[in-house]
Amino acid sequence: MFPDLPSYRCSCGRRPTPSVERWRCDCGGLLDLPAAAVTWSPRRGDHSLWRYQDAIAVPGRELSLGEGMTPLVGASPDGEEGVRLKVEYASPTGSFKDRGAVMLVALARLLGATRLVADSSGNAGTAVAAYAARAGLAAEIFVPAGTSDKKLLQIRGHGAQVTVVDGSREDTARAAVERVEATGAFYASHVYNPYFYEGTKTYALEVFEQLGETAPATLVLPAGNGTLVLGAYLGFAGLRAAGLVDRLPRVVVVQAQRCAPLAAAFAAGREDVEPVTPEATVAEGIAIAAPPRGTRILEIVRETGGAVVTVTEEEIARAHAALAAQGLWVEPTGAVSYAAVRRLRAEGSPFMEGAVVAPLCGSGLKASL
Amino acid sequence: MFPDLPSYRCSCGRRPTPSVERWRCDCGGLLDLPAAAVTWSPRRGDHSLWRYQDAIAVPGRELSLGEGMTPLVGASPDGEEGVRLKVEYASPTGSFKDRGAVMLVALARLLGATRLVADSSGNAGTAVAAYAARAGLAAEIFVPAGTSDKKLLQIRGHGAQVTVVDGSREDTARAAVERVEATGAFYASHVYNPYFYEGTKTYALEVFEQLGETAPATLVLPAGNGTLVLGAYLGFAGLRAAGLVDRLPRVVVVQAQRCAPLAAAFAAGREDVEPVTPEATVAEGIAIAAPPRGTRILEIVRETGGAVVTVTEEEIARAHAALAAQGLWVEPTGAVSYAAVRRLRAEGSPFMEGAVVAPLCGSGLKASL
Repeated sequence: MFPDLPSYRCSCGRRPTPSVERWRCDCGGLLDLPAAAVTWSPRRGDHSLWRYQDAIAVPGRELSLGEGMTPLVGASPDGEEGVRLKVEYASPTGSFKDRGAVMLVALARLLGATRLVADSSGNAGTAVAAYAARAGLAAEIFVPAGTSDKKLLQIRGHGAQVTVVDGSREDTARAAVERVEATGAFYASHVYNPYFYEGTKTYALEVFEQLGETAPATLVLPAGNGTLVLGAYLGFAGLRAAGLVDRLPRVVVVQAQRCAPLAAAFAAGREDVEPVTPEATVAEGIAIAAPPRGTRILEIVRETGGAVVTVTEEEIARAHAALAAQGLWVEPTGAVSYAAVRRLRAEGSPFMEGAVVAPLCGSGLKASL
Repeated sequence: MFPDLPSYRCSCGRRPTPSVERWRCDCGGLLDLPAAAVTWSPRRGDHSLWRYQDAIAVPGRELSLGEGMTPLVGASPDGEEGVRLKVEYASPTGSFKDRGAVMLVALARLLGATRLVADSSGNAGTAVAAYAARAGLAAEIFVPAGTSDKKLLQIRGHGAQVTVVDGSREDTARAAVERVEATGAFYASHVYNPYFYEGTKTYALEVFEQLGETAPATLVLPAGNGTLVLGAYLGFAGLRAAGLVDRLPRVVVVQAQRCAPLAAAFAAGREDVEPVTPEATVAEGIAIAAPPRGTRILEIVRETGGAVVTVTEEEIARAHAALAAQGLWVEPTGAVSYAAVRRLRAEGSPFMEGAVVAPLCGSGLKASL
């Protein structure tokens, strides 16, 4: 029916066809898309991520709000030569989640969905609501109790229904899945649906193009569920498969010390991630106690010769101030990657040798006050 | 000393040289830059407004936060064919003011200024603070009492000093001028310094490029002080002088009915603008009772065969909701241009014939809650 859409892959060997209802494998496993070499033919007149349509598995240009092609600026003036910051918050809804949300909504529309369900404590929820509105699809966004009025106003403004779940982030996800199972709605999940990573993949393609068609030595990437890690890896792996780069950038994953299951597993040399009991952190956007794709994230870090590092609340606050002092305004989670850059440079880490790129994921305008 | 910087022009005939202290003519008049044909040679690998450096009178690429090259999206799905919206809020500080702020700060640095003063109730103040931080220049921002804590936090975060003036918007500007005169600081004024319009000029250049190197039939532009009107006119007039377009787009200026001095003057056929006593409006970003460059704005409207229209509070609110329902999230002032588009279309106005472009100037994330 949609001959151009690749089928999913599961580690059990099944290859389910994308459909409105399909969000995991019959075995319960996580779905992926087949790895593919990148077709490198940017449409240079298109100033959105759709310039890379030939490398993206789903067509969706006509749905676009102009997402992607975010600025890559130097870190200044405190002498961090070689460090570049990607201003992901200069995006239609104010975060990098737009890259993936547009893909999920494009896929949902292509499959004939009329109703989407998503769960998010933050940026993904507003992004899905905005793109669903753009596509004329109904959306229901599950949020945990305590989500700010400002965010609820925006989600509702986009015409989405908000369902507040009195429980944790995980309880919220469970409630969303129950609704999906009960109604047959399309599950616009940035955790489960791998088409989301077709969008975050373009982060890598833009970095490659903006660095004069070269790969940086190191990608510093914050991770909760790791959607940017998974996508950026796909991008550079696809460029390598196409012969356009000869090695992958080292992937240095950053977590908040107060919620760091990936860091704990990496430090212990484990292949799987054990859930942690999170403490409160200002980096709420990456406070994920049990990331479903944790095993894959650890594989990526090890394959690329990277690491998982943590930053303290104090380091995040100092990084936020240091960014503001150079004209960059992020939400607290958005300062996490720069906090790691500052620390690694202070330590003289070899990860800081060569070109380093770190994203500023979410706008400081998102913070309520 | 700066041979490449054009001198100012005043209607009295003087041609003052740009300097740190110079912000108006010795006669007290407003300064302009000489009209110039646009050198059309976009640097297509540069995804900021600096791709048009050859058409911009001040160099400032190295100061950039990636401003410009904002998306141009269709208005949908309610059938407004031919209407395109320029998503100016997908900008580093969340509004179109970045276009001009980067120019003023680049100029200030080139002239050797160490300290900037600006006055703003809103977007211009945060933009100047951000770019001053980027340039490593001290800044003092004068704001009227009642400015939100959220905005003050951001301005201070960028390292700028905030001076709260217990009075009107005009009192605030007077206090800023007094500080400028007393200290010799550079006055980073979007009203007085015409280099600001070198930045807003790029709005026109982007529209021209994004429409396949054609001019739209109509530009719908909100105006308080009219910085976008003045810049957009310069852009299209420069393109016409270069032989790249054969006529100027009609400029339809939009004001909030509750503060509409330009509309009153236009309707009365006057050449000059008389101050009004403003009523409170949600469109606070354009609530300017006595725009200093009002005469020039009226000339532009008349020369291009445009008009000045007003929209009510109710129309602004409905436009805000209609934008949100298609995935676009603006602050109330940002809905003004679309409110006019909706009304003009409903009336079957000839201004809506042909390609129409309207900006969405400021992000909905800026609103406090």
